[in-house]
Amino acid sequence: MSKAYDELRTYMDKAMAIKTAMALFEWDNETLAPREAGELTSKVIGVLSGEYFQAVTCEEMKKLLEKCRDDKSLTTAEAANVRELLEEREQICPIPRNEYQEFARLTAGATGVWARAKKDRDFEAFAPTLERVIGFQKKFAGYRAKDGKKLYDVMLDDYEKGFSMENLDRFFGVLKKELVPFLKKVMEEGKKVEDSFLKGDYPEKKQEELGRFLAEYVGFDFDRGVMAVSAHPFTTNLHNKDVRITTHYTDCVDSSLFSVIHEAGHAIYELGIGDDLTLTPVGQGASMGMHESQSRFFENIIGRSRSFWVPIYARIQEMFPEQLGKVDLDQFVEAVNKVTPGLIRTEADELSYSLHVLIRYEIEKMLIEEDLDVEKLPQLWADKYEEYLGVRPENPAEGVLQDIHWSQGSFGYFPSYALGSAFGAQLYYHMKEIMDFDGLLREGKVDVIRDYLREHIHQYGKLKDSRQILKDVTGEDFKPEYYVRYLKEKYSAVYGL
Amino acid sequence: MSKAYDELRTYMDKAMAIKTAMALFEWDNETLAPREAGELTSKVIGVLSGEYFQAVTCEEMKKLLEKCRDDKSLTTAEAANVRELLEEREQICPIPRNEYQEFARLTAGATGVWARAKKDRDFEAFAPTLERVIGFQKKFAGYRAKDGKKLYDVMLDDYEKGFSMENLDRFFGVLKKELVPFLKKVMEEGKKVEDSFLKGDYPEKKQEELGRFLAEYVGFDFDRGVMAVSAHPFTTNLHNKDVRITTHYTDCVDSSLFSVIHEAGHAIYELGIGDDLTLTPVGQGASMGMHESQSRFFENIIGRSRSFWVPIYARIQEMFPEQLGKVDLDQFVEAVNKVTPGLIRTEADELSYSLHVLIRYEIEKMLIEEDLDVEKLPQLWADKYEEYLGVRPENPAEGVLQDIHWSQGSFGYFPSYALGSAFGAQLYYHMKEIMDFDGLLREGKVDVIRDYLREHIHQYGKLKDSRQILKDVTGEDFKPEYYVRYLKEKYSAVYGL
Repeated sequence: MSKAYDELRTYMDKAMAIKTAMALFEWDNETLAPREAGELTSKVIGVLSGEYFQAVTCEEMKKLLEKCRDDKSLTTAEAANVRELLEEREQICPIPRNEYQEFARLTAGATGVWARAKKDRDFEAFAPTLERVIGFQKKFAGYRAKDGKKLYDVMLDDYEKGFSMENLDRFFGVLKKELVPFLKKVMEEGKKVEDSFLKGDYPEKKQEELGRFLAEYVGFDFDRGVMAVSAHPFTTNLHNKDVRITTHYTDCVDSSLFSVIHEAGHAIYELGIGDDLTLTPVGQGASMGMHESQSRFFENIIGRSRSFWVPIYARIQEMFPEQLGKVDLDQFVEAVNKVTPGLIRTEADELSYSLHVLIRYEIEKMLIEEDLDVEKLPQLWADKYEEYLGVRPENPAEGVLQDIHWSQGSFGYFPSYALGSAFGAQLYYHMKEIMDFDGLLREGKVDVIRDYLREHIHQYGKLKDSRQILKDVTGEDFKPEYYVRYLKEKYSAVYGL
Repeated sequence: MSKAYDELRTYMDKAMAIKTAMALFEWDNETLAPREAGELTSKVIGVLSGEYFQAVTCEEMKKLLEKCRDDKSLTTAEAANVRELLEEREQICPIPRNEYQEFARLTAGATGVWARAKKDRDFEAFAPTLERVIGFQKKFAGYRAKDGKKLYDVMLDDYEKGFSMENLDRFFGVLKKELVPFLKKVMEEGKKVEDSFLKGDYPEKKQEELGRFLAEYVGFDFDRGVMAVSAHPFTTNLHNKDVRITTHYTDCVDSSLFSVIHEAGHAIYELGIGDDLTLTPVGQGASMGMHESQSRFFENIIGRSRSFWVPIYARIQEMFPEQLGKVDLDQFVEAVNKVTPGLIRTEADELSYSLHVLIRYEIEKMLIEEDLDVEKLPQLWADKYEEYLGVRPENPAEGVLQDIHWSQGSFGYFPSYALGSAFGAQLYYHMKEIMDFDGLLREGKVDVIRDYLREHIHQYGKLKDSRQILKDVTGEDFKPEYYVRYLKEKYSAVYGL
């Protein structure tokens, strides 16, 4: 090992240890911590995050990275870590420390302002804060923009390397052109789908049992993972031997059921990271979009397919004899694929989901690139929902205030949700060519599919970006058409079109 | 605030944040972490503990502490933090870093060696490791011993400031002289106590309900605390708004019941630390002994008194109608105070408990001060158990291998267990003079007793050491006689002597 890299390793280990500790605090905070702990624990996390910042930005790190940058003796993983840290520094270092801290203080409070505004259905109460957050993010992107790069492109690149307004305009353009009319057609001409039996008396204890069964069935390893309850489902990874998922229980059994499979998809990705990469900067999923591709692949492409349920549906019926005993497999699969265009992104069905993201993408572009007045957001939001989804929010809580992201300054994040689904569809058509995808599911061999994903995607962590992964696996650059094809084929069948 | 202290605060905050993170990892590890997480998580904790070491020992810290040492403008709490950090540095800094790391590696493995040896009942397998651990600890104490201080005194002082072989010889001398014959008398002349009803079908769920009720009843605040399950009960404190206890469930209901009250006692101490002290070096219990005094005060002096159960026993009977419905209050209280001299310290009754500690104290002194050959330990251990407690271990697992402490290098720790009980007794006789102690318990007013302890002990954290606390509260220096008096009065009554 090179001497400089060896020294770098010390700083890297420190940064990763602190990051892991912060991940544990986050997990604990959402699942277990007592009600009054928050304020003091936030203080602790604040100090740790300052230490992380310090580890990444310090002069020693800079010098060591310079030494390592062109060191040809480094392994692929070592070189990737150097590259990753250099990129992380490029994101942080150009921002003056005092402005960064001011922004951190602002966003620390902004989430509370947003939550209250949402509760009070009062957009005006959030607007000034949002305006300040946007101001900071534009200023920061400005510090970092090189060679006349556009501000929103700087932000997009943070979440999904290699994606910019140029290719995203094309992506969302295809979605808009194809899916908006297709969704209308499904709603107007499609048959009626019955799903009332999914709602009712599904005891929490039994739902948990079902969730644990399904998580394990798709490949979540309880020797290297934990499942708990939180208000909003999420996945936390400490390292590739400890990845944790949460779920929540409602009176709609499909809610927890598919949230477990979704989070298990995220977790399987992290559990599949190579042993040589875990606890290093590149030892995590390639990108937000690639992560979402895996969670949505497990949730939708696998989990909402008929074949998936063939070997296990009888068992599910045994778990819920009163609720599902008289519902046959086809009725069940149809129900979990029911399309209901609605106002809330996180509750959206698979078909209308990406249109929620499209709306956010269009609005973010206007906010960042066209100086859209934030006061105009509620109206604009409502108009777009009416146009694309045929529904109109009655208040901002079910409209522009529904997502937490903007209060935290996360602009450029939303597109990854739709990209993830589209990556998944492209992977799916490729896999169908080289394996009997449905046959495997019908035989209960999810593991063959999972192992393929691990071998071709998961193990690499951030050694490759999402476009490179798609190219290496499918032989093609990213193509939005697969996603549209997948949705049209699937929902034409479900709705008898 | 002084400028130097203000700067010091940054290093202190860092050290405390890392310590808090390590506490959370420890909690998580014992209660929740998946089976295979250990190895990688240990690596993370290793890095964090190195960072803690670095924060306390670094040159900047040294300079700032020197500046603050004689700064008269510091508040009492600030000055105490400076003193505390100086003491911590005096413990660590004289030890060469490479030896410290070698020792850390040794003890990291030693616990595993000990656990296997205990499982195999094979002392020989542990002896060489134990010898190395002792060697390191003696060497380290030698580096730190000033003015001809004895090595074991250096170790004792780490756990209980102001205590040395001089006053501990006197303390344990009194225990030996008074309690060994008294225990014999109880066993030979006392009446027979029936406690078979405490063992049986006590469902875990109901035990948990009982535990939560009792924890809350004695003052554990579930808005600032969590209760979970672990192999061995313990308390973790993150700060004074987040203190956590664990328990374990067996078929003996009194085991979990009193472990909950015991850990709640520890937790109430930490929850009572002043807001100005929490998350600073002095923001924790004064000493091991003072901590144990509070946990054992709640467990034994409060929890095993008849008065404590008067207002709540009917409710306990309602919880367990089949198991306790026909057991009256007096039978119940007698049963939970049954004396059964045994081989295992952690299962010992209140009366024989300190004799277990006496044996460890006498042996530690011989190991550290008289170069006792470790090969002789099993025999010596067995002889002392036979002499003081009237029982003789049949194998080292129930003898010299029972405790984890020595494998971790904790010599000088055991005496605090007995000191804690004795501190509690001294506090008890004082409190009885100024309040109607039993009357309060009978009226269900544990809160008055708890508030007294909080006001006079808990809030101060480490601003005072245990001897100072005793002097300030009771007006007297530590006196072992109260403890002997308490045990004799109580157990003479229980056993009709």
